[in-house]
Amino acid sequence: MLEIEKLKKLFAEKKETIFHDFFTFLRFKSISTDSSYLEESKKCADWLAQYLEQSGLNVEQWETCKVPVLFATDPFASQEKKTLLIYCHYDVQPIDPIEEWLSDPFEPTLRDGEIYARGASDNKGQCFYTIWALRILIKELGQLPVNIKFIIEGEEESGSTGLSRILNEKKEALKADYLLIVDCGLEKADTPAITLGARGLVLLELSVQEAPFDLHSGMMGGVAYNPNRALVEMLAKLHTETGRVAVEGFYDDVIEISEEERKHLSFNPKDQQDFGFEPTGMEKGFSPQEACWLRPTLEINGMSGGYAGPGFKTVIPAKAKAKISCRLVPNQDPYHVASLVRDFLIARTPKGLKTEIEIPASSGKGFRSSPNCYLAEIMAKSYSDVFQKPCQKTLTGGTIPIAVELGHIIEAEPILVGVALPGDRVHSPNEHFGIDRFEKGFLTICHALELFC
Amino acid sequence: MLEIEKLKKLFAEKKETIFHDFFTFLRFKSISTDSSYLEESKKCADWLAQYLEQSGLNVEQWETCKVPVLFATDPFASQEKKTLLIYCHYDVQPIDPIEEWLSDPFEPTLRDGEIYARGASDNKGQCFYTIWALRILIKELGQLPVNIKFIIEGEEESGSTGLSRILNEKKEALKADYLLIVDCGLEKADTPAITLGARGLVLLELSVQEAPFDLHSGMMGGVAYNPNRALVEMLAKLHTETGRVAVEGFYDDVIEISEEERKHLSFNPKDQQDFGFEPTGMEKGFSPQEACWLRPTLEINGMSGGYAGPGFKTVIPAKAKAKISCRLVPNQDPYHVASLVRDFLIARTPKGLKTEIEIPASSGKGFRSSPNCYLAEIMAKSYSDVFQKPCQKTLTGGTIPIAVELGHIIEAEPILVGVALPGDRVHSPNEHFGIDRFEKGFLTICHALELFC
Repeated sequence: MLEIEKLKKLFAEKKETIFHDFFTFLRFKSISTDSSYLEESKKCADWLAQYLEQSGLNVEQWETCKVPVLFATDPFASQEKKTLLIYCHYDVQPIDPIEEWLSDPFEPTLRDGEIYARGASDNKGQCFYTIWALRILIKELGQLPVNIKFIIEGEEESGSTGLSRILNEKKEALKADYLLIVDCGLEKADTPAITLGARGLVLLELSVQEAPFDLHSGMMGGVAYNPNRALVEMLAKLHTETGRVAVEGFYDDVIEISEEERKHLSFNPKDQQDFGFEPTGMEKGFSPQEACWLRPTLEINGMSGGYAGPGFKTVIPAKAKAKISCRLVPNQDPYHVASLVRDFLIARTPKGLKTEIEIPASSGKGFRSSPNCYLAEIMAKSYSDVFQKPCQKTLTGGTIPIAVELGHIIEAEPILVGVALPGDRVHSPNEHFGIDRFEKGFLTICHALELFC
Repeated sequence: MLEIEKLKKLFAEKKETIFHDFFTFLRFKSISTDSSYLEESKKCADWLAQYLEQSGLNVEQWETCKVPVLFATDPFASQEKKTLLIYCHYDVQPIDPIEEWLSDPFEPTLRDGEIYARGASDNKGQCFYTIWALRILIKELGQLPVNIKFIIEGEEESGSTGLSRILNEKKEALKADYLLIVDCGLEKADTPAITLGARGLVLLELSVQEAPFDLHSGMMGGVAYNPNRALVEMLAKLHTETGRVAVEGFYDDVIEISEEERKHLSFNPKDQQDFGFEPTGMEKGFSPQEACWLRPTLEINGMSGGYAGPGFKTVIPAKAKAKISCRLVPNQDPYHVASLVRDFLIARTPKGLKTEIEIPASSGKGFRSSPNCYLAEIMAKSYSDVFQKPCQKTLTGGTIPIAVELGHIIEAEPILVGVALPGDRVHSPNEHFGIDRFEKGFLTICHALELFC
């Protein structure tokens, strides 16, 4: 078994190569939510496939309706060892608002030990230290301590549609004993933690229309029911004054967490997270951590209506639009919840206007894995050893729909790990990831694989 | 005196030249609300200045802080004649949403007798037939029947700031007995009408902010108070369920119209205008025409917050923004009303967020001129003669702030005329203006000038 100190030394020796190649990976504009980046995503997949091969793995590219899924396997696999399926993704979020980036989102820039680039943290950074953990173990040990199957998809940020559709067909190939999702993080850089559950997600796109064309706000102001007014009035009804979602039935399928389960989770009693803002969006009676871990939410992610550019245009727009997402807890069905929200909004459309709502296919269920399953214990020990501190067990408010689906197909409980931080600005301008954390991520994966028996 | 039939013949003879030159005028991107079009606006002014000179007028360009004001005067003016000040503007509104235009907004296109272009109706079309009315009268009569001062500004769509600031300085030059604003229209193409009043306008720009950067809606959903949610909740409070503006004091200075004044105005008893949509935005108890002519309103002209482009971005935006305008009736002070709206919104900002509100300088008061003043009678007769139908006297819901200011400086009651139609899509995609109406506009101006004595 390689000592952690030895692993650190090996990392230091390869550091220059690792970050040179990581920057190449970051330069691919593999934005999966916008189809104009399809070709760029495919180029990214090709590059990554050859990189995994160079690292000593066998690689397949699984074609999907959009971008390929990479599936790398361990050439030294044997029936005596257990099999671990590891999941990462190579796609990234869009970059708007572009004007708020201090450096080009696709030209990685190092400032104060942090690498700034879209995907630096979510998820290319975590994907890349995982590749290097496997690469160095193969090189040093001549094999891997546990059979590895490594799946890296390119559509996580747009609902994993492609992978999701081929899962059944690939059931045999994916067969594994454990499922590790390396797409998660820590609350604080010095506090190790693994994540046992995530929220689900469902999206809605809404438009409210009155006239078939924009109207002059002088000629028709006070006559037409302004779609902007209709939209704000409808959306304002979605939350009660206590911060609860007002949609009838929204909470019906929520199962309260058991006291036993709650005991294993590391609720911060004082909940003194440094948010960088005043957290006032919670349902009454819940702390920020409870709100994020245990409660479903409804958020307006985008709105547009009329002229919002420089200067003024005194117009009554034909249409006003909004994009809504709901985060869900286990046992809530995404489409059922979305249809409740849809019906609620349509019923509240003012007379004279028409509401259209689409529910895009990108959705996923929430889940919570057992706090003391084998992989959870292995990962917790690895994190404790590397960080030299007890490892916490937490939940995330985010969504990794594919974790639930992969877990379902191989019949394993997903365990989520990673070293992202809340301040990494994932999905936002100036996303970044620390070189020190990259190394710690690398160490936790190496060490964990060696703990398997 | 030239008969109307003779004027028609003169128009027909010049038709090709008129529309060739009109198209040139329309090609200038003289958008005044966006400063990136400043140079283009100046080019438009230069072209127009030489065109007015070619038409037989003396022309001055009055410099302002932004784009020049054109001031053309009658070289045949004499003290025996009364003086009429005519007002038009050469600037236009922005063109968004550009994808809804069926042809290039700055490449005039003729379809079914209508000219499609930004500004075709508002106000380049009306400006241009007025120029041609003067040009042909000068040519045919060797002089003009009434002393003419013609002012054409380039910032009407952005609040006439430049002209407004030089008005006092130019008081002597502008001196006139009557004030005619050719920037108005008819309810129906076959029903002549003049307009005796317009609403005022004041604008507000609003932003609501929580965190200093965008947040991940999974990590912070249900924790942060989403600025989109705050914005819709705040804006939704601006109207009561009966359609009244809910801001305290909003209606305090509204003076009800007298029965005598009301009698002169052509209220359509059945109010059966073909809106192209169901008019449901009125305050309870008011018809569409009353709502538009006699009541102040508050409209949300633009909103933006988070990601509203193709695909999805599950973000909680740092900021959400809105642009609001209020249309005002006579006796309401724009800044006072705006400050009431500002205070109302700031007081309703949810805890943890910050609201910033700016009140741009572009504002104007409303007015109503006497229904039986001299110029109103002249114009009504000219419209009746040209259309061969009795002329109505109406009000407009739109705003021409400069009409009030010009009226104040020369101590005359503004009379508004024009042949725009509600279906011209002014301020909207596919703005258009009919060739037949261009001719009627030309005829009404020619004939009216000859009616002066």
